[in-house]
Amino acid sequence: MNTTTLPEAFAAASYPLSGHGRRNLHVLQEVLDSLDGELASDMYGSGQIIEDFERDMAKYLGKESAVFFPSGTMAQQIALRIWCDRQNNRSVAYHPLCHLEIHEQDGLKELHHIEPILLGTADRLLRIEDVKNIGQPIACLLLELPQREIGGQLPPYEELEAISAYCRQEGIKLHLDGARLPEIIPYYQKSAAEISALFDSVYISFYKGIGGIAGAILAGEQDFTTESKVWKRRHGGDLISLYPYIVSSAFYFKQREPKMAQYYAEAQELATLYNSCHGVNTLPIVPVSNMFHVHIQIPKHELEPLLISFYKETGVALTSYLNEKDNGVCSFEVSTGDRYAGIPQDLLKSAFKRLNEMLELA
Amino acid sequence: MNTTTLPEAFAAASYPLSGHGRRNLHVLQEVLDSLDGELASDMYGSGQIIEDFERDMAKYLGKESAVFFPSGTMAQQIALRIWCDRQNNRSVAYHPLCHLEIHEQDGLKELHHIEPILLGTADRLLRIEDVKNIGQPIACLLLELPQREIGGQLPPYEELEAISAYCRQEGIKLHLDGARLPEIIPYYQKSAAEISALFDSVYISFYKGIGGIAGAILAGEQDFTTESKVWKRRHGGDLISLYPYIVSSAFYFKQREPKMAQYYAEAQELATLYNSCHGVNTLPIVPVSNMFHVHIQIPKHELEPLLISFYKETGVALTSYLNEKDNGVCSFEVSTGDRYAGIPQDLLKSAFKRLNEMLELA
Repeated sequence: MNTTTLPEAFAAASYPLSGHGRRNLHVLQEVLDSLDGELASDMYGSGQIIEDFERDMAKYLGKESAVFFPSGTMAQQIALRIWCDRQNNRSVAYHPLCHLEIHEQDGLKELHHIEPILLGTADRLLRIEDVKNIGQPIACLLLELPQREIGGQLPPYEELEAISAYCRQEGIKLHLDGARLPEIIPYYQKSAAEISALFDSVYISFYKGIGGIAGAILAGEQDFTTESKVWKRRHGGDLISLYPYIVSSAFYFKQREPKMAQYYAEAQELATLYNSCHGVNTLPIVPVSNMFHVHIQIPKHELEPLLISFYKETGVALTSYLNEKDNGVCSFEVSTGDRYAGIPQDLLKSAFKRLNEMLELA
Repeated sequence: MNTTTLPEAFAAASYPLSGHGRRNLHVLQEVLDSLDGELASDMYGSGQIIEDFERDMAKYLGKESAVFFPSGTMAQQIALRIWCDRQNNRSVAYHPLCHLEIHEQDGLKELHHIEPILLGTADRLLRIEDVKNIGQPIACLLLELPQREIGGQLPPYEELEAISAYCRQEGIKLHLDGARLPEIIPYYQKSAAEISALFDSVYISFYKGIGGIAGAILAGEQDFTTESKVWKRRHGGDLISLYPYIVSSAFYFKQREPKMAQYYAEAQELATLYNSCHGVNTLPIVPVSNMFHVHIQIPKHELEPLLISFYKETGVALTSYLNEKDNGVCSFEVSTGDRYAGIPQDLLKSAFKRLNEMLELA
């Protein structure tokens, strides 16, 4: 009897294909070991350690000012609240699978009484036509780049420019959920500042592709970020010390932001390997960042033991979890990171050959 | 010309009388150096690192369950929101100088639309008569022990018991702002669990007397804490990793919670030294925890240069800031901690003798 669970088998494997490494205390120890212990803590949003990083990120994003937040959940609700207050309008619009809609226990509605309009359909990117057809005034449109829940897809850059121009013309504020903004720079071949210039406010995260501990930056004009600090205090996010997140964000940003083109190329290579397997396809087929989703046409109760055997036999691990749809298709998310480059190429190829054999027999 | 500022003079002094030490990165480095780097991060509120600490704190507080929050601001708003929702009543009552009233940018009102009733007057503890005379139904009464903004005063334990009994009889939920709960145990000679048993929900902080980085615990019955986790997610406080705060809270709790009686005795000794000086009195005269306020009958523009000279001459530093009231009386807060025991007794006595001389001449 095989009593190992999928997460256990994933954790025990020598070569997990996704991510930078384990999320353990070593991630923070490495950062702190590199820093002078005499460096003073930030104090309720002030102090060199937070102000320097906020200045660096404002520059990276080409915005006047930036504020560090403990989470993107907090930062984005606050961004939308500010735009709603300024426009005197409680309506915003975003994709049906927006983080605020599906992962935040309705904080936007429960705390801020903002009414979101879901644009387009869950299975595709929202388009400029969707925006033009809203049919009522909205304070703000939120775009997530890449659109994570559909495998990290991106619209053509020209469509982004068109959406931005339309919103400016109509007086709609445009907010960027750029949780994975550094990850999309290699595809668009635009700087973070160039992309951000299309938006009135921008959020980026430091524990996705950057691989930090937690934390987010919200950037925009000075009056916007100043107002966001008041809401940060109200939300309980204006901690006496945010430095554990700040120093790790700065450390891993410096280390990994320059590697996004590498992760992107590796994601394309890895997607090709997945797509070569029987009954497997990636979404998108050709990734546009370091992330994609994998769909396998086998129900969970069959796929799970197959994967556990595969991990044990090859040492290569694909995922620690499976989502199953009603139609018996399983899916999981892949984000390439530091781990991928450490896997011997011949092992990778022989493993996927073996995976294909196992899937053909299933 | 003396161009040193009071904060600079305080920072440069060899013997600051207040606190545990500087808030610098060493505080966190020391904790992480003591831990195994292989220890896994918490993940959105789950995992051994957070669950173990929550269990330990629930036990310490004698409550069924406890939840770790990034901040007390978040934890307490949420506690009051849950009680208001359950009682279907948007009114709560607390002291006029409650943290929620004066330090949180009105988050309770702006995010939760809860209407606080201010009980009693700002310059004294609230009393059971104030509670009995509210004159309208309230969902919840918040008591802060000790009442920080008036020097950390405490009501007699019998009055606490009477307030608790009255609230239970009237169906009013009783919440403890126990930011400094460990600090009051030596005075009451009751355990944290005994004190907490008078309350329906309890919050404690880990960066006051405990001296951690940041973070808070909210404790109560299981259904209450389960509901609080939904609101934690809504507030943006359900971070993927809270462990930097958790491990430091656990580390310094273990180290300093047993020393609260020592800090309390030292605060009494130090208050006696202050009260022996011309034009100086502490609030309370005899401290009931490790904290008290110092009032000096000299206006700020005279007192500030006097203190800077005093710090430079003696190496002993009293405060890094001064609050000035309309009547020209200055005040500051003192919390005794690890630093106090490191100051030679003869130096301390000669310094206060010198301080008295300087104040008599002022």
